Amino acid sequence: MNETVQTAVVGVTGYAGAELARLLLRHPRLKGVPPVFAGRVEEKNASRGGVPLGEIHPQLVDSHGSGALKLEPFSWELLAARGVEVLFLATPHEQSREWVPEALGRGLRVIDLSGAWRLAEASNRAVYAFQDDGTELAAATQAQAVYGMPELHRAQIAGAHLVANPGCYATSVILPLKPLVGAGLVDLRHGIVADAKSGVSGAGKVPTAKTHFMYAADNLSAYGAFTHRHTGELLEQIGVGASDITFTPHLLPIPRGILSTIYVHFREPQSRAAVAEVYRKFFAASPMVRLYDKALPQIQYSVRTCYADIGFQLAADGKRAVIVSCLDNLLKGASGQAVQNLNVMLGWGEAEGLE
Amino acid sequence: MNETVQTAVVGVTGYAGAELARLLLRHPRLKGVPPVFAGRVEEKNASRGGVPLGEIHPQLVDSHGSGALKLEPFSWELLAARGVEVLFLATPHEQSREWVPEALGRGLRVIDLSGAWRLAEASNRAVYAFQDDGTELAAATQAQAVYGMPELHRAQIAGAHLVANPGCYATSVILPLKPLVGAGLVDLRHGIVADAKSGVSGAGKVPTAKTHFMYAADNLSAYGAFTHRHTGELLEQIGVGASDITFTPHLLPIPRGILSTIYVHFREPQSRAAVAEVYRKFFAASPMVRLYDKALPQIQYSVRTCYADIGFQLAADGKRAVIVSCLDNLLKGASGQAVQNLNVMLGWGEAEGLE
Amino acid sequence: MNETVQTAVVGVTGYAGAELARLLLRHPRLKGVPPVFAGRVEEKNASRGGVPLGEIHPQLVDSHGSGALKLEPFSWELLAARGVEVLFLATPHEQSREWVPEALGRGLRVIDLSGAWRLAEASNRAVYAFQDDGTELAAATQAQAVYGMPELHRAQIAGAHLVANPGCYATSVILPLKPLVGAGLVDLRHGIVADAKSGVSGAGKVPTAKTHFMYAADNLSAYGAFTHRHTGELLEQIGVGASDITFTPHLLPIPRGILSTIYVHFREPQSRAAVAEVYRKFFAASPMVRLYDKALPQIQYSVRTCYADIGFQLAADGKRAVIVSCLDNLLKGASGQAVQNLNVMLGWGEAEGLE
Amino acid sequence: MNETVQTAVVGVTGYAGAELARLLLRHPRLKGVPPVFAGRVEEKNASRGGVPLGEIHPQLVDSHGSGALKLEPFSWELLAARGVEVLFLATPHEQSREWVPEALGRGLRVIDLSGAWRLAEASNRAVYAFQDDGTELAAATQAQAVYGMPELHRAQIAGAHLVANPGCYATSVILPLKPLVGAGLVDLRHGIVADAKSGVSGAGKVPTAKTHFMYAADNLSAYGAFTHRHTGELLEQIGVGASDITFTPHLLPIPRGILSTIYVHFREPQSRAAVAEVYRKFFAASPMVRLYDKALPQIQYSVRTCYADIGFQLAADGKRAVIVSCLDNLLKGASGQAVQNLNVMLGWGEAEGLE
Repeated sequence: MNETVQTAVVGVTGYAGAELARLLLRHPRLKGVPPVFAGRVEEKNASRGGVPLGEIHPQLVDSHGSGALKLEPFSWELLAARGVEVLFLATPHEQSREWVPEALGRGLRVIDLSGAWRLAEASNRAVYAFQDDGTELAAATQAQAVYGMPELHRAQIAGAHLVANPGCYATSVILPLKPLVGAGLVDLRHGIVADAKSGVSGAGKVPTAKTHFMYAADNLSAYGAFTHRHTGELLEQIGVGASDITFTPHLLPIPRGILSTIYVHFREPQSRAAVAEVYRKFFAASPMVRLYDKALPQIQYSVRTCYADIGFQLAADGKRAVIVSCLDNLLKGASGQAVQNLNVMLGWGEAEGLE
Repeated sequence: MNETVQTAVVGVTGYAGAELARLLLRHPRLKGVPPVFAGRVEEKNASRGGVPLGEIHPQLVDSHGSGALKLEPFSWELLAARGVEVLFLATPHEQSREWVPEALGRGLRVIDLSGAWRLAEASNRAVYAFQDDGTELAAATQAQAVYGMPELHRAQIAGAHLVANPGCYATSVILPLKPLVGAGLVDLRHGIVADAKSGVSGAGKVPTAKTHFMYAADNLSAYGAFTHRHTGELLEQIGVGASDITFTPHLLPIPRGILSTIYVHFREPQSRAAVAEVYRKFFAASPMVRLYDKALPQIQYSVRTCYADIGFQLAADGKRAVIVSCLDNLLKGASGQAVQNLNVMLGWGEAEGLE
Repeated sequence: MNETVQTAVVGVTGYAGAELARLLLRHPRLKGVPPVFAGRVEEKNASRGGVPLGEIHPQLVDSHGSGALKLEPFSWELLAARGVEVLFLATPHEQSREWVPEALGRGLRVIDLSGAWRLAEASNRAVYAFQDDGTELAAATQAQAVYGMPELHRAQIAGAHLVANPGCYATSVILPLKPLVGAGLVDLRHGIVADAKSGVSGAGKVPTAKTHFMYAADNLSAYGAFTHRHTGELLEQIGVGASDITFTPHLLPIPRGILSTIYVHFREPQSRAAVAEVYRKFFAASPMVRLYDKALPQIQYSVRTCYADIGFQLAADGKRAVIVSCLDNLLKGASGQAVQNLNVMLGWGEAEGLE
Repeated sequence: MNETVQTAVVGVTGYAGAELARLLLRHPRLKGVPPVFAGRVEEKNASRGGVPLGEIHPQLVDSHGSGALKLEPFSWELLAARGVEVLFLATPHEQSREWVPEALGRGLRVIDLSGAWRLAEASNRAVYAFQDDGTELAAATQAQAVYGMPELHRAQIAGAHLVANPGCYATSVILPLKPLVGAGLVDLRHGIVADAKSGVSGAGKVPTAKTHFMYAADNLSAYGAFTHRHTGELLEQIGVGASDITFTPHLLPIPRGILSTIYVHFREPQSRAAVAEVYRKFFAASPMVRLYDKALPQIQYSVRTCYADIGFQLAADGKRAVIVSCLDNLLKGASGQAVQNLNVMLGWGEAEGLE
């Protein structure tokens, strides 16, 4: 077990990048080993080399000098010179698709926050813009990718060289469904509905018509019905077919947080205690999942934590359930889960630095 | 057909009351015939007699002197003296339960915005706090109540003496579902899901822990799963059984607006054109419903209008649909629909004063 | 006095444009005479010719067919062919600077919502990007421009061919200050402070880093201290020097509305009644200003109205006052005031179509 | 120097209480020494004894079991039995006024977050509802109270038995003004303006008409002009007279954060460098103040930190300045400053546990 490790972060300028920097800078195992912050190689980012982190994210300025750390121009040589062992990529899908094979070839362990390597099935990858080139290298890389959800794949993550960090919506839907579907409780013939709502940070930092305050504020809108690209993660990880689940994301007028309301029919009537027991068993060793007893989770209690919160209510006859999951899309839905994966990969306490 | 009519509003101090006052004050048929605004009979309201409307709702002050109109202490004599013919009740359920029989006995026509008289089935009324006393008078009153949704019951409303104005959530779920269920398209064996989200004005003006800004802002919470009292309206008006539909309301961090996301399975695969045609036919004579062609409705385009907006998307195989409806909970979900009912009752254009 | 008039609007795609369209479409004098909506001449806008208004602003769709009105490619011939007499320009400053002389030359009366022609002093215009070319035509055009604030310049507006519609911040600061400064009450040696706060719509529809929901929401930021380009309007209209007033705008996390808090010292101690009387006299003939008696205006009661609301409180010794003004930046701060100017220009009731 | 200390918190159910609990539970010096959480003695709170912290504040539930800590019924015996040495009071002013003398008599050191003991001048205390009884005990208690702003009174706090934790608004106005006024730069004859804006958490947890989401959201309102009770703190701490400063608070539609915009005239023209140097010197040993170089602070970068952020801009002639300060009203404006005071009292690093 490593006492500590040198990390690097590419893509620190976005929202998930800022949270990743914050978590790593205060991680007890990484005291005195700040990440190498590397700008992407495009010209405009290269020119950002030397920009203090505190100029990009003023909230990271503190008395320890975190804000003075600089964003350096990326190169493989930079990583080698600094002795980087674990590389976080908070980069566009296309860039991760290109860089990950090279990083692995250079002996780095990679935690990729993009959607580039999450999907085993080529058909599920078709929704992404990156060219799924079908080379042997791509196939070999995909073959060693582990889906980075410790609650489902803890053992494989521990030994992985490439961890594909899950999508935010996917995390909020897989965690509450996998235990029930896996235990055979759910009657798939009725179809599962996952009605998910996310804050605006999920849409990224680039200003667009949809992230304009005037569009998002005081509004709610559904989008991507039947077509959202996190759908493939749901199918592969929960183990259901495309017609078994209907997933609709919505854009909430809040900065961060996801609440997913999930509707299932059971094969047999269930008691509250029985369902609770299925969850308790499944998450017994999972410190980053909080199970609610009676109340339902709410976004206000989950944001700015690294937890996924799950609660449920049953119909009077025990045949149907409404399950509610909440998490912070930038934390358990992105950077918190990435650090959780780091902890698992290095044999540290799974919750270290996450509370 | 009346040229105009003298109305009265009881319960103008709340949010729906303010909108009702605004709509009636600017209604082209009611120019020069402002409503009698009557405070409830409780002491504190009686003392409000004489309070200018503009002190209660500063936004109603205008150059025509609307803000100077006074809230008068309620009495049946007051209504008689002023020649009131139509009475709007924006009062608690219990009060409507008590007052409506008396109002009808005095020859008034009533549009009741509470939940007191919406439900034909006693079992569905059980969720309300009012005592369903089972007297002959109550039964007779209930028997003449018409559910005030012109798109479903236009003819009965025209002749009604008691119109039970629908619930806001109920309106947002019944309007998009009734045409499809009524046409026999929906396979009820799969179960319908109605995932509804409402702004905070739906929770009323009394300050509570849940309407505190710190609770509602930046939050989303589900509540009333399997138990919300608008459920009975869905069952009676759509014509489905309690196990056929799962309805979950959520509290949105916005002042007003409801978006309901509704999930159905079809008996047979449907084309977009076929479903659109069902809706077009059903709402052909309904000016207050706007059908969306391709895009889905959003709260931002529906709030502060008296319309219900409906759009939908189909799964690739045509077997499932996601339907989205949007409306303003205080307008089409309450006061706008009340004035629409007034128009129908008096033989005026259904959309008069609503645009 | 014209019974009605044919108008045209260039620049309907922005926020002020949408409000202008809404006001004109429902104006009682313009029933049956919808404006000609013309896209700007740039290529992308030209291609927008033929786009229904309802696609650009879904909230304008109504039962009267307003949403079906089309945005046509702009040309001077188009305006002539349709018999346009009054042209509204909701265009960038540079474009207004170029088009207004031509429009006047063609005999049109123009209400320009940009900052192009508001400032008589060349030095005050220096903050704008447009080239203040100093040609005779520009000078002659500027010379006939009337600052479009009816409360100050009603008579000149009535006869004007070019009305320069005021800035939103400027309106919120000039209206409360002019009566007091004009009456000689204010001791300028102490300096006036105008601390103004505006909703995000004031920043325009183009998505930028500052209009991103993640930047604006849950935030407040000051900007443009000592340099904001509305300052020139304050100096010219209130009649004070640059060192007499400090004006600081702030970006509020709300869609619309401006609240300005203004601090003055009086030459002599004043009573509440005396100050109120100054305001009452000044605004006696001004239907679009609402004076508050005791309470202070709030944004919630001013937005979505065309009023400017003004209230004040005095220090115990009567030597200092805090004055609060509120208005909707898109209405009294832009399109509402533009229609108010139209009313004055055509001899109609000043408040027609504004309530 | 104590290695650690046993603390107790009375009043943990409010917003400041929740933040105080969070800070103390994760303070590195207090690992393994969780505070005693004591409910107020009123009946309803007594019955809360035994309620897990996680039921009151679900966000405090974590893997360490913090959420399972219970709120115990308050008694002096409880504090003695647990060996409490430092008592935090997040209680109403009246209660602090009554309890503090007793606590001091029992040898406890007290950090009082209320306004009960902040004001040395009886005339300034007159705005509070508590009876300023004028007993010898009250006078003696007041005499030993130290105003708990380490940046001004570090040495006295170190030895204090009673620390009166400052008001949130007061902190945001005193910190940016004290260095300039103290250095003699400010020309008081012109008058200082402090225009302050606070999020809704500053109004407390009790639901009221003003904290209702419908009142606060999408709104901005000024209140307490010339009368706000934090004014006395400004006068006593900055050292100015009542007519030298005009302070106006506003209610912002955000959960937390204060931004104060402060306007001063200088006696002599100042350069940016000179003013910056005054601030740098004054705060050289103050880790919880962040000085901005060019940009102005914004609420988004200050909330959820324990810092006060200060920036400024000068008029071209150097005679006037606009100063902007930002802080989190629950942290540097309340609980963060309370823990900062604890650190100073115990000789620990002033910033420990605050980042």
